[in-house]
Amino acid sequence: MPEPEETPEHWSKFRERCRLIIFHSTRPAEKLFDVLLILAIIVSVITVMLASVELIRAEYGGLIYAVEWVFTGLFTLEYFVRIYVSKKPLRYIFSFFGLVDLLSILPTYVDLFLPGAHYLMLFRALRVLRIFRVLKMVQFVGEANQLYAAIKASLRKIIVFVMAVVTMVLILGSIMYLIEGPEHGFTSIPKSVYWAIVTLTTVGYGDISPQTPLGQMFASLIMITGYGVIAVPTGIVTAELTLATTTEKNERRCETCGETGHKYTAKYCRNCGERL
Amino acid sequence: MPEPEETPEHWSKFRERCRLIIFHSTRPAEKLFDVLLILAIIVSVITVMLASVELIRAEYGGLIYAVEWVFTGLFTLEYFVRIYVSKKPLRYIFSFFGLVDLLSILPTYVDLFLPGAHYLMLFRALRVLRIFRVLKMVQFVGEANQLYAAIKASLRKIIVFVMAVVTMVLILGSIMYLIEGPEHGFTSIPKSVYWAIVTLTTVGYGDISPQTPLGQMFASLIMITGYGVIAVPTGIVTAELTLATTTEKNERRCETCGETGHKYTAKYCRNCGERL
Amino acid sequence: MPEPEETPEHWSKFRERCRLIIFHSTRPAEKLFDVLLILAIIVSVITVMLASVELIRAEYGGLIYAVEWVFTGLFTLEYFVRIYVSKKPLRYIFSFFGLVDLLSILPTYVDLFLPGAHYLMLFRALRVLRIFRVLKMVQFVGEANQLYAAIKASLRKIIVFVMAVVTMVLILGSIMYLIEGPEHGFTSIPKSVYWAIVTLTTVGYGDISPQTPLGQMFASLIMITGYGVIAVPTGIVTAELTLATTTEKNERRCETCGETGHKYTAKYCRNCGERL
Amino acid sequence: MPEPEETPEHWSKFRERCRLIIFHSTRPAEKLFDVLLILAIIVSVITVMLASVELIRAEYGGLIYAVEWVFTGLFTLEYFVRIYVSKKPLRYIFSFFGLVDLLSILPTYVDLFLPGAHYLMLFRALRVLRIFRVLKMVQFVGEANQLYAAIKASLRKIIVFVMAVVTMVLILGSIMYLIEGPEHGFTSIPKSVYWAIVTLTTVGYGDISPQTPLGQMFASLIMITGYGVIAVPTGIVTAELTLATTTEKNERRCETCGETGHKYTAKYCRNCGERL
Repeated sequence: MPEPEETPEHWSKFRERCRLIIFHSTRPAEKLFDVLLILAIIVSVITVMLASVELIRAEYGGLIYAVEWVFTGLFTLEYFVRIYVSKKPLRYIFSFFGLVDLLSILPTYVDLFLPGAHYLMLFRALRVLRIFRVLKMVQFVGEANQLYAAIKASLRKIIVFVMAVVTMVLILGSIMYLIEGPEHGFTSIPKSVYWAIVTLTTVGYGDISPQTPLGQMFASLIMITGYGVIAVPTGIVTAELTLATTTEKNERRCETCGETGHKYTAKYCRNCGERL
Repeated sequence: MPEPEETPEHWSKFRERCRLIIFHSTRPAEKLFDVLLILAIIVSVITVMLASVELIRAEYGGLIYAVEWVFTGLFTLEYFVRIYVSKKPLRYIFSFFGLVDLLSILPTYVDLFLPGAHYLMLFRALRVLRIFRVLKMVQFVGEANQLYAAIKASLRKIIVFVMAVVTMVLILGSIMYLIEGPEHGFTSIPKSVYWAIVTLTTVGYGDISPQTPLGQMFASLIMITGYGVIAVPTGIVTAELTLATTTEKNERRCETCGETGHKYTAKYCRNCGERL
Repeated sequence: MPEPEETPEHWSKFRERCRLIIFHSTRPAEKLFDVLLILAIIVSVITVMLASVELIRAEYGGLIYAVEWVFTGLFTLEYFVRIYVSKKPLRYIFSFFGLVDLLSILPTYVDLFLPGAHYLMLFRALRVLRIFRVLKMVQFVGEANQLYAAIKASLRKIIVFVMAVVTMVLILGSIMYLIEGPEHGFTSIPKSVYWAIVTLTTVGYGDISPQTPLGQMFASLIMITGYGVIAVPTGIVTAELTLATTTEKNERRCETCGETGHKYTAKYCRNCGERL
Repeated sequence: MPEPEETPEHWSKFRERCRLIIFHSTRPAEKLFDVLLILAIIVSVITVMLASVELIRAEYGGLIYAVEWVFTGLFTLEYFVRIYVSKKPLRYIFSFFGLVDLLSILPTYVDLFLPGAHYLMLFRALRVLRIFRVLKMVQFVGEANQLYAAIKASLRKIIVFVMAVVTMVLILGSIMYLIEGPEHGFTSIPKSVYWAIVTLTTVGYGDISPQTPLGQMFASLIMITGYGVIAVPTGIVTAELTLATTTEKNERRCETCGETGHKYTAKYCRNCGERL
């Protein structure tokens, strides 16, 4: 979001105009820019994805190449305009979204000079992250913040939970390696641990599955445990969100000092002590 | 539900009678109509489903054809009666349920003139939606409304969440495409993204699954993340429903002092001690 | 649970003693009976399960046959003792647990006269239900009741939810049948609906899975929807349980009339109006 | 955690120093010990896991053997130092973590004398449990305790729930055995029960899956039930956690009137208006 600092007097009208179009979204021209940018990002990400399909690349290779360059050109232009209108260009360049912007245009240029740098193409998929910057300014800010706050508040509990799960799958995987052994697909402890994760998270690919009766009995135990374990992260996040939602809906406001967040049962403002 | 507007004087008794039978459900004759309609819809949907089974179509093709025409006839009759008794026929025709009613009878007639219009048959499956209209009038209205309200209240948060998930699977799928590559079934980025969705939602078909140790390690990370991520929509809906349920049960208000939040079993105001 | 009615005077001491041993569980002899009964049920159910394993039946057929008859004899004895000590024998015989008791001994006798009545053996698995009667009397009554109450309170909401899910899978399955068609395993609408259920519930066997890009795209939509949908029943049950748990822990008690369930913020008893 | 008892006067400075380094973690040297210990445990567990991979063992067998002995040496040293600095050595030796410490070094020595004792190697995987002792002292204590309390409070409800699930899968598995039979992979009741667990917990390997229309219909019922059933443990844990979180955040008490339930941000009592 734009900093509320004063804009320097000597700035050109044009620069100021660009700044408004990129960072604000109240006037039609500014909204149009946001919508076009989101569309460009989506089309460009779809192009990257389709380019990886052999059949499509064989048939429409030229078109994809052209589209790729058009969007890279546009995004490069946008990148430099952003630097130009930014009050603190360096801060923008090294910000999270600044790096994402750079990474999403660089691979196409690198590919020009080092045709074998196939793996760099991946960074183009990061373009999808750019959508969030646009959305950040317009809508859903309240919802995203509430979710973010609930996840942040649950983070330490979730770390404890994930550590417990990792310990569990290490021990369960090791036991299963002994029970089933390499002849039933459990070729090593890491593979058994992978299987334990696939099972405990209820994904259950079925690429490795227990064959012996003892293994199936033990797997049943893991599954029923996993059933209970899945309740824990849900409980953590839900508890935080319930609290947040309840608080939000109980926001009674003091007429005297403007303090919000009073419960329905409160009689006096918790901030200034005046009757509500 | 019927609008409480006055019925025009010049309406025939018959038309009024039809209207009551279709829209009300307090007298036995009116209830019988609802029950018969639900039965007809269920039998007709089962017929559509069985007609798609090769073996059954080969053996009972004639019977299915006959049943299909009987129900189409009945539903056509019902459709015209609904238009006839409706005070604002056009509003009914272009309402959601009006279109569902039309779409669920049209395919059979079209099939008569254009025998190849196989795909239109699908619309017959939409008949199942008609059950909801009947139910709407009779029971479960309170429950459905409460669920609907909770989902509606969570909608914006769920949109934010789904966008975050879509971004995640796009990036995770692209990374997995690089790790595993076409030789292990990850033939393109869209297919890898499909795999990421199958994994993150814990569906886990197993039609594509990571083969390399690095891929399995990365997949394990996705699964454990998915385990935590599934907690978020649950938390969102639960928080809203908890609020709704708590509010519903706590809504009683003291006439004397205005204190709210009394339980249904309370006899005296918990604030001023007066009888509720 | 035993009815608190008076025991008729003319009852024999022995009958009364049996009654206490079967229905109470405070003295050591009474507790021992409960423990032995649970053990007998578990061993007998394990025998039924093992008897179905070809290899075990071939080797230990005689032993299993003997064990089966010993337990059938014991349970028959127990059944008649229960009728003997019951104050209202007919009410017991036609109660839920009375029928379970009968069904769990009958198949062995029927098998004697009609050796082909293989399917009746299934009823022996119902013996496992008998464990609940024993547990009902001893412990976990509070917990089971609270769970039962929460599920009962959520029942109507869950019915609405299940109906919405059934409608969804019918429509989604029909669409998938058109997209993928018989050549990719979606041989009929019922089979496609089965696939939709397997996918939406995140079970994901992988016996049928979409092969075409369009089908995989559509399946991805279903999976992400299912991800959100799973939140609804969880939300329903959690909301009820949160309410029950919160209520249980907030049980403030009025000194004057003994009414419980006051909130911490209450100043007057909600029953008699006295100051708490 | 270290007991706050007085340290005997005659203890050597060295012993006291060791004690502080092992049990405290406020000074840099003490923190360094914790970090090094965690690193040693992680590296050693990774070595155990890699040693089970055939290819790695073939190539780096010597290195793994050496690393194994270095860590066993270090952990043996640590074990004896812990006994040495402990005020009640026997209590430490027979405590949970004391036994884990012993079990994680013993297998390597036993392997020296009984080269065939392959299965004992598993105990080395238990080393991962040792991480929890280190973490116990430093951080996440509050979070872990809150989770532990919520799980403990839900334990009796979860036992009731697991018993209900076990009963369900026994009966559902038996019915499925009759419906599908050995020719479709349901070779015995235990195997059918295993399938029922795989399905109800939404793992869904797909190694066994129903083939007959009736079986698929019945499986659909189980899946939709499982969808509802998964809500129960989540509801149980969430209800407890919501209560814990809400209570923790609402614990402030007014000194003047005794009213509880104030938020941390409140400045005045919401009941009497006095400063908190």
